[in-house]
Amino acid sequence: MRKQIFYVILLFVLQISASFAQNKPKYIFYMIGDGMGLNQVHIAESYQAALENRNTVFPLTFTKFPFSTFATSFSLSHGVTDSAAAGTALAVGHKTKNGVIGMDSSRTETYKSIAYFAKEQGMKVGITTSVSIDHATPASFYANQADRNMYYEIGQDLIKSGFHFFGGAGFLSPEKTYKKEAAPSLFPQFEKAGYTLAYGLKEYKKIANTADKVILMADKGTPAEALTYAIDRKPEELTLQQITASAIQTLQKDNDKGFFLMVEGGKIDWACHSNDGATAIQETKDFDAAVAEAFRFYAQHPEETLILVTADHETGGMVLGNGSSTLQLSRIQHQKVSQGVLSNKISDLRKATPNASWDVVKQLLEENTGLWKSVKISETEEKEIKEAYNRSFVQHQNETEKSLYAIDDRIAALAVKALNRAASISWASGNHSAAYIPIYAIGQGADLFHQKMDNIDIPHKIAEAAGLPMVSQAAATR
Amino acid sequence: MRKQIFYVILLFVLQISASFAQNKPKYIFYMIGDGMGLNQVHIAESYQAALENRNTVFPLTFTKFPFSTFATSFSLSHGVTDSAAAGTALAVGHKTKNGVIGMDSSRTETYKSIAYFAKEQGMKVGITTSVSIDHATPASFYANQADRNMYYEIGQDLIKSGFHFFGGAGFLSPEKTYKKEAAPSLFPQFEKAGYTLAYGLKEYKKIANTADKVILMADKGTPAEALTYAIDRKPEELTLQQITASAIQTLQKDNDKGFFLMVEGGKIDWACHSNDGATAIQETKDFDAAVAEAFRFYAQHPEETLILVTADHETGGMVLGNGSSTLQLSRIQHQKVSQGVLSNKISDLRKATPNASWDVVKQLLEENTGLWKSVKISETEEKEIKEAYNRSFVQHQNETEKSLYAIDDRIAALAVKALNRAASISWASGNHSAAYIPIYAIGQGADLFHQKMDNIDIPHKIAEAAGLPMVSQAAATR
Repeated sequence: MRKQIFYVILLFVLQISASFAQNKPKYIFYMIGDGMGLNQVHIAESYQAALENRNTVFPLTFTKFPFSTFATSFSLSHGVTDSAAAGTALAVGHKTKNGVIGMDSSRTETYKSIAYFAKEQGMKVGITTSVSIDHATPASFYANQADRNMYYEIGQDLIKSGFHFFGGAGFLSPEKTYKKEAAPSLFPQFEKAGYTLAYGLKEYKKIANTADKVILMADKGTPAEALTYAIDRKPEELTLQQITASAIQTLQKDNDKGFFLMVEGGKIDWACHSNDGATAIQETKDFDAAVAEAFRFYAQHPEETLILVTADHETGGMVLGNGSSTLQLSRIQHQKVSQGVLSNKISDLRKATPNASWDVVKQLLEENTGLWKSVKISETEEKEIKEAYNRSFVQHQNETEKSLYAIDDRIAALAVKALNRAASISWASGNHSAAYIPIYAIGQGADLFHQKMDNIDIPHKIAEAAGLPMVSQAAATR
Repeated sequence: MRKQIFYVILLFVLQISASFAQNKPKYIFYMIGDGMGLNQVHIAESYQAALENRNTVFPLTFTKFPFSTFATSFSLSHGVTDSAAAGTALAVGHKTKNGVIGMDSSRTETYKSIAYFAKEQGMKVGITTSVSIDHATPASFYANQADRNMYYEIGQDLIKSGFHFFGGAGFLSPEKTYKKEAAPSLFPQFEKAGYTLAYGLKEYKKIANTADKVILMADKGTPAEALTYAIDRKPEELTLQQITASAIQTLQKDNDKGFFLMVEGGKIDWACHSNDGATAIQETKDFDAAVAEAFRFYAQHPEETLILVTADHETGGMVLGNGSSTLQLSRIQHQKVSQGVLSNKISDLRKATPNASWDVVKQLLEENTGLWKSVKISETEEKEIKEAYNRSFVQHQNETEKSLYAIDDRIAALAVKALNRAASISWASGNHSAAYIPIYAIGQGADLFHQKMDNIDIPHKIAEAAGLPMVSQAAATR
């Protein structure tokens, strides 16, 4: 009899562990920091500790997750991927060539993203970002287009998706096709397809309880390109964390089948394209605030939730440490605005006072970067900035440079460069690098992420955890 | 009856899995690539594929291991660690300040390394490296000294260790103390303590079957500082892989209690201090050949072996990708010798032909780096090199610069710099960076390495896997 009880207990234990192991996540968060390489994360972790003058890291929410590894990110066409090929890899589990959204490199075959597999299982789907909703990373999850710049056509794919929530700054080309032809506005088409449009958090809150499908955008009159950088943001402006919380609310409504929510922190990449360390750190922390929102949900549904945090690629070849073993990362705190806003301030000054003196310009830089006042600048660096000042304010030459996502004033760029150098941050270029992308996971299925992999493995493993049929399709085609 | 059989089978399965889970590794390989950051590994993986003109990676032995994650490496005193504080962290599981070997930062308390815990459990211990045996990383596993430069005193600690195998190039100061006083040679003391000294592989093979404790060094007449770089090595010269195989042989002899073997690839760091990408790639691959040796042993004893591969820190802020999305990494193949050997060649030429023409120097550079012939060089770069040539061969100035581990000729350094730039490799500095270190694990206990950690966690987790009492000590003191 005692033996039998023993066996019964054994059986019970076995069943428990088996069922635990087989649990599928009902709620999937797929969170992507655009341009967020391992060093971007490490520098954000180190910065918080540096402010307290300590040689350590203060972990972010996701760096504490129980599984962390890394992956290669090369595309089919290039050693260094762009966000379209990388987004496609993360969304559909296939490599393609740079510039392509959800299609093969010959642009004949369309690939189905994991979001559609989730929808077919009855899950509600949300696609969110801090940049425009039609940008490469979010688009990869719902669109199939030959070129990432086909914003209007990507918007049309959104309508077909039937996903329940979209969130981001807005749409880049709602009334003009890729061929620059005028076209019917996308917005009435969204509404006709059942979407309630909400501009800003206040509008969302009004419709949250009644709307079935929602497109949440930044307030009217603000740029469609992207939310404001965290470092520049005013309290009333929409944040990625608020978008994440709103997405959860809409996806949870009248829903017992779970959800799949993609969240992109899209502007870490933009800041790194500008080699703007202070802004990149704040964007990484801001993305982490969105992860913290997902983590709060996880804490309420730990047995049913998977949170996967990764990146599409590294941007800038960012390095902490540029010679000395003593880091000076805390100096970056003196930068008060992004390089873009600093550029605008210089531009405004030039308009108001075309012949402003060097002292006036220097004071503006001092106030916004801490150079001279709090951070020493080298003679060479000062000379460079002063030469740029002369060309701009004395000789009245156009001293701006258009990078991928910004128009940077040369004076602003040089000041930010000097501050980064002084703060022990180095940059390899203004473009992406080939570095590994980090992966962090918690919850049901997180234990699949324990080994170096390729970026296309990530959606397959999420699908494997969730029992989505994408896995077998992948096995057949790879 | 059928039920009972079912229960018996169940019990059997449970016991099997429990015993599997509780197996302790009898053979522990702790392999450390000095200066081998994530990018160093990724670039070595990418290089092999680049030679075949493919955008992918050809994995190294250890990048295929089933567990991979990463760790922070800061020291107690600095955001950027040196090899002494990092080696100490990896060996004893405590942070200390830069420069200190196996002691606390006030240099009063000594810390016991995991190698001693292993020895106390009856395991034989081996400590090996491609640099000198008294260098910071190997020393951290057997010595306790206030300063990493106390080479003679570190050698004395070796005698006290009683470990069974030491392997490396040699000893840096066998007859002179830290205070530069003459002292009795360490070598007779080693022999008196029971060690058989073997200079080169041939000598080792002669004594391998009889000797109990062995110190294997490079052949007599070769430098004690380090083995020759893989890129410069002649077929007859000693390799880290041979040292690893020899260590396994000695540690396995007359031994049923297992072993603990530390293997350091010490010159990845040196190559990166020189910002010499070609040499760093070959050193990383050479370290991987030592890992492959351990892996062959693992394949014969998969249930009893743990291989842990990691690094002490990243060196140079190495980045793959410096602007273009199209990588040109295969160009690095045109470099035929290390920057150090190229410096020697230029030095030899200057001695033989003090007024050698630019064409002669250019041809030397062409032959050894492929510049001009196979790889285009920019006008600015050519101008810089030519200026260095003028100072050196026309004005006869001393144009060498002593870096941490090399005396680099300025012409050689500029040529290597140009080739690295052309091959899409960027460097942040000639020193260490604060970047995460990679971790790879296979075998018994490998599943403990699935989460971002700190470097001091690594020996604690190995100890946990092996049941060494270090774990509880650590828990008490952290």
